[in-house]
Amino acid sequence: MSVLPKSVENVVNEFSKLPGVGPKSAARMTYHFLRSPNRDASKLGNALIEMDEKTKFCISCFNVTDKEICDICDSPQRDHSTICVVEEPLDVVAFENSGVYNGLYFVLGGVISPAEGITASELRFKELEERVTSAVNESESKIELIVATNPSLEGEATASYILDIFNTYVKEGKIHISRLAMGLPTGADLEYADRLTLKRALEGRRDI
Amino acid sequence: MSVLPKSVENVVNEFSKLPGVGPKSAARMTYHFLRSPNRDASKLGNALIEMDEKTKFCISCFNVTDKEICDICDSPQRDHSTICVVEEPLDVVAFENSGVYNGLYFVLGGVISPAEGITASELRFKELEERVTSAVNESESKIELIVATNPSLEGEATASYILDIFNTYVKEGKIHISRLAMGLPTGADLEYADRLTLKRALEGRRDI
Repeated sequence: MSVLPKSVENVVNEFSKLPGVGPKSAARMTYHFLRSPNRDASKLGNALIEMDEKTKFCISCFNVTDKEICDICDSPQRDHSTICVVEEPLDVVAFENSGVYNGLYFVLGGVISPAEGITASELRFKELEERVTSAVNESESKIELIVATNPSLEGEATASYILDIFNTYVKEGKIHISRLAMGLPTGADLEYADRLTLKRALEGRRDI
Repeated sequence: MSVLPKSVENVVNEFSKLPGVGPKSAARMTYHFLRSPNRDASKLGNALIEMDEKTKFCISCFNVTDKEICDICDSPQRDHSTICVVEEPLDVVAFENSGVYNGLYFVLGGVISPAEGITASELRFKELEERVTSAVNESESKIELIVATNPSLEGEATASYILDIFNTYVKEGKIHISRLAMGLPTGADLEYADRLTLKRALEGRRDI
């Protein structure tokens, strides 16, 4: 005899699949809804189903959107000659919230990671190639590609892979590829910086 | 211009209402679904809506169930002369998972808490009175009421309130009211025990 009704157990199981949510938190979340008087469970339920139905990937940058082409790709105010390659849609949110970037994006969908069994064929390299090619053909100025994958081993490997893809374009002077700067983050304590961060900060040192 | 489509923002907002989930975790959970290929969002969505539709409170103990009377209240194997009064359905789960209790339950729905504006009228004291009265009338043996509210200030106040309600029954010898023992939890370090726990552990000391 199980203590929980089947319908409650289902919700606990589904919550447990979320990243960073263990069985205890999943149970607590579920019981939060059972306690709430205003049918919050159905509200979240309907919101999730609606999201599943409405969201798709922008056909140009593959960011999450509810339109064919997302607002960013569609905006004439953005700099269409700069494309920032990121891993996930959340990275776009981070850039947009910071307000420091005015170009376009391209969401790869992850990074090459042999440890997790993610090969190049599972990411959007083909789509990136098409995207950059059409940008090169359409634009009169040089295209800048900013590779903003995470500063991890996998992110670095993916950045090298991208560099390889566009080797010819770079040689022809049609595109310029850059990588986000690495070094000490603002407010960091040098004392606690790891070896690699210090190495990168030294390598990238600038005259003042 | 918002970065997120409305339907995605709705899900983030609903997730943020969960206990212990901040805006960042809510965004991470939402994007987990956007990344998942097998429509997990709709799975959780449907599970939540089904839970909202199917679950109700047992008419006898007010635990969450999908039946009129829950499996525990309905079981002839349980000791029907013992009723354990708890705050929340999750407390029932804790007891049931421990396997140390074989009586029935009564879920109060919270504790009296002036700080949070929860008065006695919002809890199920009337229903508890009816429940105990019918148990007294039906049973030939003495009814035991175990008050298992949390060992907090509010839990203690609620326990006193329950004691007041059943004062007459207790005097008439019809019911016996007990409270869960307080003291040091198993595996605890005396060094780190708080003052009140030590006080209670001393007061409740037993001959060995």
